[in-house]
Amino acid sequence: MSELRYDPVKKTWIILSAERGRRPSHYQSTTRAVPEPKICPFCPGNEAMTPPEVYSHRSPDTAPDTPGWRVRVVPNKFPALHKELPCEPYVEEIHSSIPGFGVHEIIIETAVRDRQIVDMTDNELAEVLIVFRERMRTHFSDGRFKTVILFKNHGKEAGASLVHSHTQLMALPVIPKNVASQLTSFEEHLIEKDRCLMCELLVREVQEEVRIVDDSGGYLVVAPFAASSPFQLNIVPKDHSHDFSLSDDDSLDSLATVLGSTLRRLHSALGEHPWNMVLHNAPMDPEGHLNVEAYHWFLEITPRLTNLAGFEMGSGFYINTVAPEECAELLRETGIQNPESSSQ
Amino acid sequence: MSELRYDPVKKTWIILSAERGRRPSHYQSTTRAVPEPKICPFCPGNEAMTPPEVYSHRSPDTAPDTPGWRVRVVPNKFPALHKELPCEPYVEEIHSSIPGFGVHEIIIETAVRDRQIVDMTDNELAEVLIVFRERMRTHFSDGRFKTVILFKNHGKEAGASLVHSHTQLMALPVIPKNVASQLTSFEEHLIEKDRCLMCELLVREVQEEVRIVDDSGGYLVVAPFAASSPFQLNIVPKDHSHDFSLSDDDSLDSLATVLGSTLRRLHSALGEHPWNMVLHNAPMDPEGHLNVEAYHWFLEITPRLTNLAGFEMGSGFYINTVAPEECAELLRETGIQNPESSSQ
Repeated sequence: MSELRYDPVKKTWIILSAERGRRPSHYQSTTRAVPEPKICPFCPGNEAMTPPEVYSHRSPDTAPDTPGWRVRVVPNKFPALHKELPCEPYVEEIHSSIPGFGVHEIIIETAVRDRQIVDMTDNELAEVLIVFRERMRTHFSDGRFKTVILFKNHGKEAGASLVHSHTQLMALPVIPKNVASQLTSFEEHLIEKDRCLMCELLVREVQEEVRIVDDSGGYLVVAPFAASSPFQLNIVPKDHSHDFSLSDDDSLDSLATVLGSTLRRLHSALGEHPWNMVLHNAPMDPEGHLNVEAYHWFLEITPRLTNLAGFEMGSGFYINTVAPEECAELLRETGIQNPESSSQ
Repeated sequence: MSELRYDPVKKTWIILSAERGRRPSHYQSTTRAVPEPKICPFCPGNEAMTPPEVYSHRSPDTAPDTPGWRVRVVPNKFPALHKELPCEPYVEEIHSSIPGFGVHEIIIETAVRDRQIVDMTDNELAEVLIVFRERMRTHFSDGRFKTVILFKNHGKEAGASLVHSHTQLMALPVIPKNVASQLTSFEEHLIEKDRCLMCELLVREVQEEVRIVDDSGGYLVVAPFAASSPFQLNIVPKDHSHDFSLSDDDSLDSLATVLGSTLRRLHSALGEHPWNMVLHNAPMDPEGHLNVEAYHWFLEITPRLTNLAGFEMGSGFYINTVAPEECAELLRETGIQNPESSSQ
C-alpha cells in the first residue's frame, strides 16, 4: 500500500508507505540499528536477491541479472512508490490523497562491495554519472513524472541501510514544495533582474573568493553563504543549465573529476563520516505553466555531523556552528590523493 | 559571533553561530556522542553553572540563583542568538545578513534531575506551561521580536545534550519561511472559505474519528492525516486561537492533563524513545501587514524513530512507514498510568 497525502497547513506532501498489522514491539525496535545482512544483495552473484534489473552497464557477453556488470539499476525491493498504481490527478481538498504512483529504484554504483565513491577513479565515477543521466532521461520521457529526485545516503546516520555503494532515484507525479519554491525563486529573479539567480550568485562567489573550494572544469565548488550545516557544499555548473539530464559525456567526465576530488577533500578533512548528496534539478512541466528553464541545477553534499533538533523541525531555520568561509579555507588547504583503479 | 543569513534560492534563514579557529580534529569529533557532564548544571545547588536566571517560580523566601525554585529560566550558556547585538532591518540582496540579534533561553522544567515530563503530575506540568506562556508574553511585548519558537528535545538522538528536563525558547527578529508559509495557508483559506483551515480540519477529524487519539478538555489529540513520520501527533485547541500566550490558567490546566497523558501514551506504546515537541504559533506582526489571527496554534510531538535521509532533505517530501490511522488506533488502546507527586 502506498499513497501520497497532502498537508494543507504545511503545504507539503508525504508518501505513506505502510505495512499493516504490526505490533507495538515493531515500533519500539525501529530506533535500534538494523544489522547489515550477512549476504550483500548488491554483490555480483547475488543478483537474484534484488528485483530484476531495469538497466545496467555490463560486459557485452553477459546476461541481465548475472555477474559482469559495472553499474546496475534495480527497482527498490521495498519501494515507497509503485509504477503499477494509477497516476491520478491531484484535487486539492482538506484531506487530499492520490495513489502512490511513481518509481523508486536503486543504482548500484560498483560491483565491489567495499569500494566507496571516494575510492573510485574518475572514469568509474563518470560511468555512474552517465547512468544517473540515462535513468533521469528515461523517467522524464515517460510523460507522467514531474520530478526526479536523485539522492545518496552514505553511512547509517545518513539513512543508508547497506554499505555497498548505491544511489536512490525517485520519480514523482507531483512537484514537491521545496522544488516548486526554488523554481519560483529563479522565475521571480529572472523577471526582476533579467538574469539567473544562480549565475549571479556564482559571479559574486568568484569575486569574493572566500567560499570557493574548487574552480575547475566548468564547475564551481562552493560552501554556500547560508549553508544549513557545517561543511555543506554545492557543486554548480558555471554555464547555465536547468537539467542535469541534458549534460553531455564531456560535462559528466569533468563533473566526475570535481565530485571525486570534493568528496576526497571532505574525507581527508573530516575522516570517515556519514553524508548525503542530493541533486537539485528542474522539474518537468508537461502543461507548460512553469518556466522550468529558469532553474539552475546543483549537487548538494551535506556531511551529517550533527543531529537535527526540534528548532530546525519547527521553523525550517537552521543553526550552523561553522562559518562556510572557514570550511572553504580548510578544504582548500586539504591535500587529496587520487584513488587507484579497481582490481576488478 | 552570530549572524542571520538568508538563502535566496531556498528562501530560508540560517543562524550562523560559529566559534573561530578550530582545527579539523574538532569537526571530526562532532559525530561522536558528547558525554553527559558529571555535574548537572541544571540541578539545585549548581545555579552558578548557568548564566543568572531571568525568571523563576520559587519559594517566596528564596533568592534568585539559589535552590528553592520549581521552574527556572536562564539564558542559554552557548546561545545561537544574542540580545545585546543590534536589531537591524533585513534588506534583500544576493547575500543578505543581519546581526544574530535575538533571545535563546532554557526553561528548566523541574528541580529533580531524573524527573521527565512523563513523570510529572498535571499540576507540575501546568506550572511549566504557565512559565512557557509568561516567557512568550515577555518576548512578544518587547516589540522587536516577530517569532517565538518553543521546542523541546528529549534524548540525544533528538538533539538533547543534557538529561535534566528542559525546553528551549528562541525569539527571532524575522519570520522563518515555515512559519510564514503556514500563516499564508491560513490566510488564503480564510479568504476563500471564510473559515479557519484548522477549525475545518478538526470538524473533519471528529467526523472521521479514525485519527483521533484523545478528545477531552478543549483539546483534540490527532495523528495528522499527512503525518511526516510514525506516531507524530498534534495537540490542537478546539476553539480557534492563534496565540498560545493568550491562554488563561484554566486552559493551561486542561492542556497539562492532555499533554501529560499523550506523552505517557507514547511512552507506554513505544517504550523510552527520543522525541521532539514544537509549538507552532502565530508570529507577531508589528507592522500589521499580516492577518496573524488567521493562524491556529498547535503542539506537534514527533517521536524520532527513524533517521532523516537525503530524500527528505532534498525534496521536503517525507516518507512515513506507519499509517496515522494505525498509530491512533494503537494509542487509543494503550493504557496510561497517572504519575505520582514528586517527593520534593
